[in-house]
Amino acid sequence: MRPYLHEVKYYETDKMGVTHHSNYIRFMEEARLDWMDQLGYGFERMEAEGIVSPVVAVSCNYKKPTTFKDVIEISVGVKQLSEVKLIIAYEMRLGGKLVCTGETVHCFFDGGRPAVIAQRFPAFHAALLATME
Amino acid sequence: MRPYLHEVKYYETDKMGVTHHSNYIRFMEEARLDWMDQLGYGFERMEAEGIVSPVVAVSCNYKKPTTFKDVIEISVGVKQLSEVKLIIAYEMRLGGKLVCTGETVHCFFDGGRPAVIAQRFPAFHAALLATME
Amino acid sequence: MRPYLHEVKYYETDKMGVTHHSNYIRFMEEARLDWMDQLGYGFERMEAEGIVSPVVAVSCNYKKPTTFKDVIEISVGVKQLSEVKLIIAYEMRLGGKLVCTGETVHCFFDGGRPAVIAQRFPAFHAALLATME
Amino acid sequence: MRPYLHEVKYYETDKMGVTHHSNYIRFMEEARLDWMDQLGYGFERMEAEGIVSPVVAVSCNYKKPTTFKDVIEISVGVKQLSEVKLIIAYEMRLGGKLVCTGETVHCFFDGGRPAVIAQRFPAFHAALLATME
Repeated sequence: MRPYLHEVKYYETDKMGVTHHSNYIRFMEEARLDWMDQLGYGFERMEAEGIVSPVVAVSCNYKKPTTFKDVIEISVGVKQLSEVKLIIAYEMRLGGKLVCTGETVHCFFDGGRPAVIAQRFPAFHAALLATME
Repeated sequence: MRPYLHEVKYYETDKMGVTHHSNYIRFMEEARLDWMDQLGYGFERMEAEGIVSPVVAVSCNYKKPTTFKDVIEISVGVKQLSEVKLIIAYEMRLGGKLVCTGETVHCFFDGGRPAVIAQRFPAFHAALLATME
Repeated sequence: MRPYLHEVKYYETDKMGVTHHSNYIRFMEEARLDWMDQLGYGFERMEAEGIVSPVVAVSCNYKKPTTFKDVIEISVGVKQLSEVKLIIAYEMRLGGKLVCTGETVHCFFDGGRPAVIAQRFPAFHAALLATME
Repeated sequence: MRPYLHEVKYYETDKMGVTHHSNYIRFMEEARLDWMDQLGYGFERMEAEGIVSPVVAVSCNYKKPTTFKDVIEISVGVKQLSEVKLIIAYEMRLGGKLVCTGETVHCFFDGGRPAVIAQRFPAFHAALLATME
């Protein structure tokens, strides 16, 4: 899987002169959606198959600041896949050095009710499993 | 009509140490929605009456910078009201001094087609007129 | 300590019709800065005393969605205070119901080097301790 | 000059399901900074030469909505260059169709005072003129 690149925008910096910490949560979303695309489960296909998967938790550890024009390389992977929960892990690097790590936790819904991923979305489940090998 | 107050947030500043210029467009939206509320045409009522009114143009003149913790006072008024177009004007002040002026232009739609405001939304039209007196 | 109120802005919603999850990280910052003000350690005083305290980690658990015009009540408190680390906890409620909980982890720097909070900033340390009683 | 591409992010949409209008101001900044880079006057060189050029006015005309995953092509050009003022024009297209046009007005400062562009920054002035031929 190809890592996702985010070039920090001027408006993403704050008065400390660095990327505001809230933006990394957005970079993680960008990287995740790109990774889903690469997985064959882009936004349109998920919508078409009725996969609704809200972020139920997020965490982020800031190692080094970044700033305007920095190109952050974000690698994405499955950390844990249970019956009803998916944990995705992120590593963000600048020039090879780790600047931030993060995780997002996702549940899956089917008509408003939690769904067992492997049963309700077997192809998606298989695609996720394949990334873990 | 009571002016709207926006206290500048830390994340609204940029690496120049001032409020990023794009945020004033958001402050204008906040002030406009508050003004509509005061006018008796809050978001819920507009939705209920089927009033769809996208921003078709926006402009902003920056006079003085603002920064974190500044409380910007925004006054809102109708600049022009024609059959199919509404122009709203904004004045933003800090400690009485003008920091920014702006305008937004709005059209109105009825089932996807432009609507004559006075005919389709007479009560709203009357409320707008009343602010101009 | 008085809880912080954030009214969700239109531009903070996303195409799902709810508050985008990244914004809660910003709400936590707003609430924390307000809480510091109440504590007597507002931004200006911290700057004047040379207290530099970056966010080194953040986490957020989303319980229920919120949307435009919702007024979120955010309570802030010290979860843990060690020699060199401060963990702040947040509870966000809407109409009394928990919508989100979160934590931020902070270190303190003195001239670019990690500082022992109680030694370098004794008054601030005492103020933090006082909130825990 | 190569146009700038911005792919609309999920968090840039709002509850109407379209790109929030304030974001186009940010896209214009991204495109302008990229254009300056292509012009040989990237951010670092401008900083090194002491060129400070705040946005003094911005305007935007919204033609058609865009949404998540749309790749907007933004072309940038000088609209007007006077002794002390630069007006930059933007055209944003989606699949060849115009979705938004905009303008930004810039002044130039030298030690806090307005500067005559051709005198204070002759190489930059020449580069701007060259784009107009």
